[in-house]
This record gives sequence, C-alpha cells and structure tokens, in this order.
Amino acid sequence: RINSARLWDSLMEMAKIGPGVAGGNNRQTLTDADAEGRALFQSWCEAAGLTMGVDQMGTMFMRREGTEPDALPVYIGSHLDTQPTGGKYDGVLGVLAGLETLRTMNDLGIRTKHPIVLTNWANEEGARFAPAMLASGVFAGVHTLDYAYGRKDLEGKTYGAELERIGWKGSEAVGARKMHAYFEYHIEQGPILEAEEKTIGVVTHCQGLWWLEFTLTGKEAHTGSTPMAMRVNAGLAMARIFEMVQEVTMAAQPNAVGGVGQVTFSPNSRNVLPGTVVFTVDIRTVDQEKLDAMRAAIETRAAAICAELGVGCAVEAVGHFDPVTFTPELVGRVRAAAEKLGYSHMDIVSGAGHDACWAAKVAPTTMIMCPCVGGLSHNEAEEISPDWAAAGADVLLHAVLETAEV
Amino acid sequence: RINSARLWDSLMEMAKIGPGVAGGNNRQTLTDADAEGRALFQSWCEAAGLTMGVDQMGTMFMRREGTEPDALPVYIGSHLDTQPTGGKYDGVLGVLAGLETLRTMNDLGIRTKHPIVLTNWANEEGARFAPAMLASGVFAGVHTLDYAYGRKDLEGKTYGAELERIGWKGSEAVGARKMHAYFEYHIEQGPILEAEEKTIGVVTHCQGLWWLEFTLTGKEAHTGSTPMAMRVNAGLAMARIFEMVQEVTMAAQPNAVGGVGQVTFSPNSRNVLPGTVVFTVDIRTVDQEKLDAMRAAIETRAAAICAELGVGCAVEAVGHFDPVTFTPELVGRVRAAAEKLGYSHMDIVSGAGHDACWAAKVAPTTMIMCPCVGGLSHNEAEEISPDWAAAGADVLLHAVLETAEV
Ligand SMILES: NC(=O)NCCC(=O)O
Ligand SMILES: NC(=O)NCCC(=O)O
Repeated sequence: RINSARLWDSLMEMAKIGPGVAGGNNRQTLTDADAEGRALFQSWCEAAGLTMGVDQMGTMFMRREGTEPDALPVYIGSHLDTQPTGGKYDGVLGVLAGLETLRTMNDLGIRTKHPIVLTNWANEEGARFAPAMLASGVFAGVHTLDYAYGRKDLEGKTYGAELERIGWKGSEAVGARKMHAYFEYHIEQGPILEAEEKTIGVVTHCQGLWWLEFTLTGKEAHTGSTPMAMRVNAGLAMARIFEMVQEVTMAAQPNAVGGVGQVTFSPNSRNVLPGTVVFTVDIRTVDQEKLDAMRAAIETRAAAICAELGVGCAVEAVGHFDPVTFTPELVGRVRAAAEKLGYSHMDIVSGAGHDACWAAKVAPTTMIMCPCVGGLSHNEAEEISPDWAAAGADVLLHAVLETAEV
Repeated sequence: RINSARLWDSLMEMAKIGPGVAGGNNRQTLTDADAEGRALFQSWCEAAGLTMGVDQMGTMFMRREGTEPDALPVYIGSHLDTQPTGGKYDGVLGVLAGLETLRTMNDLGIRTKHPIVLTNWANEEGARFAPAMLASGVFAGVHTLDYAYGRKDLEGKTYGAELERIGWKGSEAVGARKMHAYFEYHIEQGPILEAEEKTIGVVTHCQGLWWLEFTLTGKEAHTGSTPMAMRVNAGLAMARIFEMVQEVTMAAQPNAVGGVGQVTFSPNSRNVLPGTVVFTVDIRTVDQEKLDAMRAAIETRAAAICAELGVGCAVEAVGHFDPVTFTPELVGRVRAAAEKLGYSHMDIVSGAGHDACWAAKVAPTTMIMCPCVGGLSHNEAEEISPDWAAAGADVLLHAVLETAEV
C-alpha cells in the first residue's frame, strides 16, 4: 500500500500554489502559477530519482528506469492545471498519486521490467485555451502543433506565446513516445460512487463531447429608444437556444448532458442591445449516434431560432472527442486490484473528458476513479477524503505493477 | 443662424479623442480619454470667454455673463462621455451645439439679461458606473454624493477614486446652483423623426426606466459529469427570464420596451455550470403605472422561474427614473422657434433617459431632438447629417435667446 499521509501532504503543498478565492485553486494553464506548480512537481520528481523530458507542448514526462530499459514504458498521468475556480484534486490527484506510487516503489526497492513514466499533460482543462486535453490531443495526432499554438484565451494571447513566456516549451517532438500502456487516476467529478457507497470506480468508457461555440450577430442599439419591432435581439436568440439545448438534452435521456458555461455579450453595457453574443454549448453522451444526433438537432434548431429573429448565427466546433471504450485487459486489472485490496468498487462511465481519452487512441489505456463529496467538481469546494485518495492510489500501484511486470 | 461648419468641425475634433474600433468613440466616464475630452472642451470655452466652475461630481459649468448678473442663469447642457462602443454625437452634439450658440452670440455681439451656463454633465451614460445620469441625479437630489462616489465599474474601481485619479473633482457643492431654465439638445437615438421626415423633435415627455440587476445563484459544477437532475442551472433560469421579459414587454405594447444588454457568467468557463449569473433588465415606458406593473410582473415571474429550478434570485434596482413631462412653456418656445425658422417638426417622446430628466425635478426644462440615421445609437455607426445638427442648434439658439431675454 502507498503512504497515505505523504500523498495527502503533497496534495496540500501543491494546493498552496495558485490559491483560489474560496479554498480551491486558480492555477490555469500557462499562467505564472502553472509554472510554479510545475517547478515544485519537478523538484519532487528529481528527489525521487526520476529524469525529466518536456515536449514542445509543455507536457512533462518523469521517467523511472526499468530493468529492461528498452521495453516500452508504462505511463501514469493526469494534469496539474486547474479551472479558474477549480478544486484541489481534479487532475492533481492523478499526478501526485502517480508520484506516490513511484515513491512507494522506491521505499520498497521494487524494480519493474518496463520503465514507468509519470506525466503532467499540459492544458487538460481547456478553460483558458479551448479545447480541453489539448496537449494529449496533439500527442495522439488529433490536433496539429500549429493548431494548438494558435489557440487563444479571452484576452487574445496564444498558447504558443504563453508557453514560451512561462519557460516550459520543451524540445521533444510531441507524440514521439510509444506507450506500453497508459493509466489515469482521477476523482469522479460526479455523484455516482458516493451515492452507491463504492470507493473505486472501474472506468469502462468515457462520454463523447461536442463544444459548439455560437457567435450570434444582432444589431447594437439603444435599449430605450429602439422600438421592439426594430430590434435584432441576439440576447433573446441566445435565451431561446439555451432552452432548446435543455429540451434536446432532456429528450436524449438517460445518460446525456447539455449546458452552457461561457457567455460573452458585446459591448456588454446595460443600455445597449448586444451586437455580438458568443457562448459555448457543451453536450455529452456515451453513445456516438446519439451524440451526433444531439449536435445536428441543436444546430438546425438554433439556425431556425436565429432566422426567425433576424439574428446572424455561426457555429464552430471548438472541442470534440468521440465516446471511448477503455482496453478490457487493463480494465480487468484495475477491477482485480480493487478486489485483491478489498476495496468496494463498481464499473462506471467517465462523465468528464480526460487525457486518457486521447491516449486511448495510441495505447492500451484505462482509468481509475475515487468518489468526491456531493459529486462536486469544477468548484472550489471540491472535496475528497484522504482514505478515498489513498485507495485509488493503491489500486493504481497494483495495476501498474501488474502491467510493468516486477 | 449658427455657424454650421464650425459646429461640425468641433464635433469631428472631439471625435478624435477616445476613438472606437469602428469609426465611433470609446470615451467612457472618468477614463483618460474623458479627461482629454474635458480639457479640449475647457480650452474652447475659455477661448469663447466663458468661466469654468466644476462641482464635486466632476460636472463642468461654463458661464457667459448676463447684463443682469444676479438673474438666474439659463442652462444648456448634455454630456461628453460615451458608451464603450458609442457614436460621435450622443451627448456630444448637445454640448458642442451649446458652445456653438454661445460662439454665435459672441459673433453677433448679442447680450442676454440672464447669464447662460453651458454644462457637461458627468457620467450620463452609466455604462461604466450604473446608474446613468449620475451627476445630474446628485444635482437634483435624487442620489447622495456618497452613493455616487461608491458606484463601482466591472473591475471594482469606484466613481470617487476614478474622479480623483483623472483630476476632475471640483470643489463646488453639487446642486448648489439654481436654474432659470434648462435646455438639452440631443440626437433622437430612435427611428421616428427620420421615418416621419421631420428635422426637429419637440420633446414633450421622456420614458421612465427601471434597471433591474438580477443576481442568480446556481451550483457551480462540471458540465460533463453532473447529471441533468442534479443541476442547479442559473444559466437556464436566466434564459427563461429573458424570454419572460420579452413576453411582459410585448404584452405592454404599444410604447414599452424591455431588454438586456449586460450579462456576466462566473466563473465563465466552458465546462463549468455557472455559480453566479448577473444581468440587468432595462424596461421603459412613458406611463408610470404601466412601468411599475411591468417591474412587478418581471420580479414575481422571475422569482417563480428561479424557485422551480432551485436557483437563488436577488434583484436590485440599479437605475430608475419616473416618466417626465417637460415644462409646457419651454416646449412651446422650442416649437415656435422651429416654426419661425421653417424647420419641419413634430412632438416626440424621448425613448432614452437624459440629464434633462433629472434637471426637470429642479428647474423648468425641455429638450430638442434631431434625427439619426436608421435610428441607430449606442453603436459606433451612429450618424447624423451636418444639416440636421445645425437645424437643432438654430432652434436651441432661438429658444434660449427667448428665455434668457435679449
Ligand atoms: N476532467 C475534466 O474536467 N476535464 C476537462 C474536460 C472536460 O470538460 O471534460
Ligand atoms: N441618452 C442616453 O443614451 N442616455 C443613457 C441613459 C439611457 O440608457 O437612457
């Protein structure tokens, strides 16, 4: 078993970097806080005898040698970046529990045949630069490096420029590494494990996603002196689209979600009808056909809503991944490890996207989950118990050892 | 008649300060551009022999002596501040046409019994600091100075601190001045005069307004892993409130408007359901009872919408004025001047709020309007013709001379 207290201490140390306003974290991708978190992680890894590689997307790879150095490495990973008002565990737990498994191997003098590489993927959250899981997407060949470098935050700063600015642009070609297997441990970010009183989620699938960014063009005009009949009201069109997304999603139940997290009104003045309204619809489900049908319904109905109001409507897909089925053999190893260690467990579908979803395109991949209080995540109040954290790390340790071969 | 070319030149000179991104202006209240615009206006006024007073709200008063210096002055005024994406004429025309009437009196050697005071009211727009017409509101005793100083922009900067920063906090007690009459000349900001092919709007009334700022509290949560049934969706509540405001407004036709120009989602991340949504509903009509009934209906129905979704709902009135009836004697003088000068004219209700609405509480007051192309205002594309600009200035000159007594 891993050292639960040491894992928890590391989590609490990392949480001091990029503190939020309500007990959580704001350590968004490629900010100064991100650089500080990376440096702390690097120092811990070097103290544990790991050697660092950094690729041109800024992803960090921390290698522990195997007894057969030429064997393909087993990868463990997740991310240290957070939402603007994020929790202390989303992503961070997977990286630091990975570190804890390697520290434990060191303590116990365990050597594996395959090298093990601990990974901190860059820009998993996609909060500052859409889409999410950007670096793992380039790694898996889904995006080009140029596409990724050109992604912009709300201030217009690019991923490429910000990566240089914080000094974490590595030299390694992205995706050059080959993986024997990839494991990711993450908090559930949903309510199911807690409700079912299970400590370990054996993740069999991940929901697919579309992020549809709408740009509605209305007529910027005075709210007081523009008669109702003369308005080209992009805000009203947005409202009708929100309601329609809700309808489409409810009609796709069970196992589908849809909502909107980001909205920008321009010029955003109380007495000016907006000239432009931009927002992103997030839809997900594990069924590929249903996912694409939701997208089609939303785009068609949004176009009709806008046409009726005379509002211009452009849609760009700024994020997408297909539903994922994880590698049955690895899923079986996770289940067996939980069983052997005596942790209650259940099979579960990941509601959120993870770097594992892209890794699954290029390597045998699976995930492990632990519960989080009230299912709350992407919220500074996100909470887990030290016991939950440790249980998943134990399962990770055993599944990885099984795969890396002692 | 005034000097039309000189008036137009001054308008174009002022428009160089705080240029917008699309041919208009961004010279918002208490920005550096505002300070620069004030300094240019001051230099022009001093060249025209006017003496400056500045009150503690930053409103500028430029006085031309009368032959009876103790007679109460006739005031002419409007504002030089603009929307973030504002036009070159909204407010500016009234101030610079006022200056042009005084320059014309100088040219023609006209002396009036009553002094004349040309006024640049601070923060008319209310874009940066709600409510609109803030300085004239303090002048009329509607707001306290403390309330005004404490108003915050979206970055949390206060009116009081920003007024000091730009160096335009005067010493004069706000509202100390007594007015014989107040005239304001403004572009219509609506489509009626142009549609009716009239050059002069004789303004008889102004619509009343409520700005209702809603703060909706949802549950910040992951858009992917939070099942639909567990969501506390403040964005959806907002959408339903927008649609409801539209319904309430349509039911109040004719002569009522309602809409939303400003929205803030927090944390505003694509994969986070918002914890907080803030937006301001702007409703207006000239009928006091109807206005208050609209407000009541909106608040009641919004509370029900939010209750159904479990969303918290707080409402604050951040802007308000009652419908105004302008002083019939002055209205008559404007109509007579248009008649005498041979300009086509019609009676009209002001759709937008103006400093004249507050001035009307403490002095005989009226307004003059000229058309604007396509009824467009609060838009950088706002346009008027030099002839329209000059016609209203001519009417202003004659109505003021009649009132200030030659
Ligand atoms: N795990 C996680 O929150 N990833 C971000 C991408 C997503 O929204 O699913
Ligand atoms: N004239 C004008 O746009 N004033 C700002 C206050 C309002 O929204 O009516």
